[in-house]
Amino acid sequence: MTHRPKYDLLIHNGTAVTVNKAFDILGNALVCIRDGRIASIGETDPAKKLPEADTVIDAHGGIIMPGLVNTHTHVPMSLFRGLADDLPLSIWLNDHIFPAEARHVDPEFVRWATWLACTEMALGGITTCCDGYFYEEQVADAFNRFGMRAVAGQGIIDFPAPGVADPAKNIATARAFAEKISGQPGTVTASLFCHSPYTCSAGTLRRAKAVANELSLLFQIHVAETESELKQCLAEHQTSPVQYLDRTGVLDDRTLLVHAVWVGDEDIELIADRGASVSHNPESNMKLGAGVAPVNRLLKAGVKVGIGTDGCASNNNLDLFREMGITAKLHKAVSGDPTVLDAQTVIRMATIEGASAIGLDDLTGSLESGKAADLIIMDTRQPHLTPMYRPDSHIVYAAKASDVKTVVIGGRIIVKNRDVLTMDTSEILRAAGQLGREIKTCSARISNQEG
Amino acid sequence: MTHRPKYDLLIHNGTAVTVNKAFDILGNALVCIRDGRIASIGETDPAKKLPEADTVIDAHGGIIMPGLVNTHTHVPMSLFRGLADDLPLSIWLNDHIFPAEARHVDPEFVRWATWLACTEMALGGITTCCDGYFYEEQVADAFNRFGMRAVAGQGIIDFPAPGVADPAKNIATARAFAEKISGQPGTVTASLFCHSPYTCSAGTLRRAKAVANELSLLFQIHVAETESELKQCLAEHQTSPVQYLDRTGVLDDRTLLVHAVWVGDEDIELIADRGASVSHNPESNMKLGAGVAPVNRLLKAGVKVGIGTDGCASNNNLDLFREMGITAKLHKAVSGDPTVLDAQTVIRMATIEGASAIGLDDLTGSLESGKAADLIIMDTRQPHLTPMYRPDSHIVYAAKASDVKTVVIGGRIIVKNRDVLTMDTSEILRAAGQLGREIKTCSARISNQEG
Repeated sequence: MTHRPKYDLLIHNGTAVTVNKAFDILGNALVCIRDGRIASIGETDPAKKLPEADTVIDAHGGIIMPGLVNTHTHVPMSLFRGLADDLPLSIWLNDHIFPAEARHVDPEFVRWATWLACTEMALGGITTCCDGYFYEEQVADAFNRFGMRAVAGQGIIDFPAPGVADPAKNIATARAFAEKISGQPGTVTASLFCHSPYTCSAGTLRRAKAVANELSLLFQIHVAETESELKQCLAEHQTSPVQYLDRTGVLDDRTLLVHAVWVGDEDIELIADRGASVSHNPESNMKLGAGVAPVNRLLKAGVKVGIGTDGCASNNNLDLFREMGITAKLHKAVSGDPTVLDAQTVIRMATIEGASAIGLDDLTGSLESGKAADLIIMDTRQPHLTPMYRPDSHIVYAAKASDVKTVVIGGRIIVKNRDVLTMDTSEILRAAGQLGREIKTCSARISNQEG
Repeated sequence: MTHRPKYDLLIHNGTAVTVNKAFDILGNALVCIRDGRIASIGETDPAKKLPEADTVIDAHGGIIMPGLVNTHTHVPMSLFRGLADDLPLSIWLNDHIFPAEARHVDPEFVRWATWLACTEMALGGITTCCDGYFYEEQVADAFNRFGMRAVAGQGIIDFPAPGVADPAKNIATARAFAEKISGQPGTVTASLFCHSPYTCSAGTLRRAKAVANELSLLFQIHVAETESELKQCLAEHQTSPVQYLDRTGVLDDRTLLVHAVWVGDEDIELIADRGASVSHNPESNMKLGAGVAPVNRLLKAGVKVGIGTDGCASNNNLDLFREMGITAKLHKAVSGDPTVLDAQTVIRMATIEGASAIGLDDLTGSLESGKAADLIIMDTRQPHLTPMYRPDSHIVYAAKASDVKTVVIGGRIIVKNRDVLTMDTSEILRAAGQLGREIKTCSARISNQEG
């Protein structure tokens, strides 16, 4: 009989930013991990020997914190990063993104694009994302293969879409996806993603929400992203997009509202009353000229607000460190008040509040006993993090994605010293580069024909 | 007699984003460097052998571009990074920054802090900065020792300041500094930095500008940063801060206006008429809740606008890649127009326009024959830069400071494969860490006494 060490993994010699309720910061922390969960977390007793473990990681004085939670992605769009920028929304979408999706997106494309996005996200400290796209079964398979924790939502739209040529089958496809995924082991939770109130009929919204309720799944939807969406909704339905969703019966505590830029006080009150949550995607909203979501008012009303990168075509990165810095600063700029969205608030949004917004806060988003061991270690021995007066300030205002050295998801070491262990990064870069060259050639050919 | 190779340094096998007038992007570029200058730049002729050179750098398919120009810094403040955040401006300044400066800033502090900032800046692709602080002679020495190109401005303020206990000597100190620096070899150009129209009297402004004119130096000044400054100026002088500066006679084509957030159409017209330039510091303005400068209107009026990080206490990083991304996105967000400040405009601001704003555009800011060899090489073989449809898009919207692998200033290799060659980084981190611990202890002791 072989001797089994007490723990699978042990992390020590770092400052733990726990993001628990009290926001405890533990100097010289000791995190003990067994069976994918945090068995214990506390300060190291210098008088005692370290407990036995299969693997011991020395954090070298760095920061140990919960892995970041990206509450809004379309991971397959990583292959469209930088294909078209600085354009009016309608030209960007109709002349570039939609045609590229129609021409290129297939199961093979989706798999490599998901791995490319997972590689970028993991190397930037993201351990959970909440996704919505088409061929989401392939996306979910790719998440599982990589080891990324994810909520994966099959896209629902009342138009022909990649993998769903007949929109009459959009709900059935999403239900089949969700039933299949829900029975599988792995790191992925199924979800349904209705594209928006203006691309899904009221009937589609109601039927999709009914499936989500029946299967106890998160229902995601883009809403109130642009002023023109608000105007169109007011003209067609004589009410705001959020109030229209409520009237349609899809606004409850298992609904994630993505964007929520053009929401008024009544909308905010309604979101809070219904217990719905919000994904704030500042870089995407800025880049597309959509505007600035009233995040401080949403938080004051008690709404759970997470932070998302959105897809790579409208950002163009999957970097939550940048997104945290911008979230903290943007709302200070527009309110003129440097005290709003302080560092701890923003860290909560990017971890535990984000996890709560997508229904995973029992599992992830903070370093506490019993939770999944989803955590990252940052190397602080760098000029831009020296000196360090407060680790929470550095996380939001100074740290970079490249400071992440180690990433653990569910107790499994995904990144070690900036190497992805679960997949072959060079193979992913090669395949992604090849797909990119095909997209570029095709896109050049089409603009030559048009020109 | 030893044979001398044709060139000192040769860089090949990369895509050169030249930022020349035509914004030429050269595939498979060849940059030949001799005596600190770019002797030639063009596309590699695959039929020919590479020219002889002492040192040959293979860019491995990456991006070669001009080093970034940071148009506003207070480099010694790198040691105050994260000391106090998320506070009202007056409390942040009067209760934290000013007392910390009074207690800690001395020549030794300034030297280590400058080296810390140079290390961060160089590793993030910045090859030139425009600084203003006290003990600027030590700052300038440290810039020279490191090899950073800089415009160094001795601070002028009508209060006792570090190294200038008697404000009556502020101009004389600045003149002595400028005369000393101007006679020295190295990478530093002298300048005068008047703190602001509300901390320098009209007499001080006039006398400082007279010295700057006499010695042909850049005159820098913080102006129109906050709404309260605007209101105070209107109340005291019955005119806006910019018009007050013009009335005082200090607004001309060798004046750098730092911030210029609260400027109206008349101010913008005046800045353009006088040929003055502007340093836009978006992250600092956002973090302090100062507001958003009307950059698009300044650019339309023909004003030269560079991008600055400001000091580390109000940012909290010296990362121009982040600053470029935010500049491109912020003005889209506030205008609601995703076409403003496109990628090429923002790259120009962070390179040639910034160089022009601080009077160094004959020397740096673009890759052109005859200019100083101030350039960086970025490694694009990374998930967040794959695929690459357009290098200009990636530089602004996807690249990170950590993608910079090689940095050359005046033909001298400062950073090679992310190692600083000109100084000992670990010694700088050790000294900065020690100074940080002293500041922290002191700051904790004082708040205990007060509490």
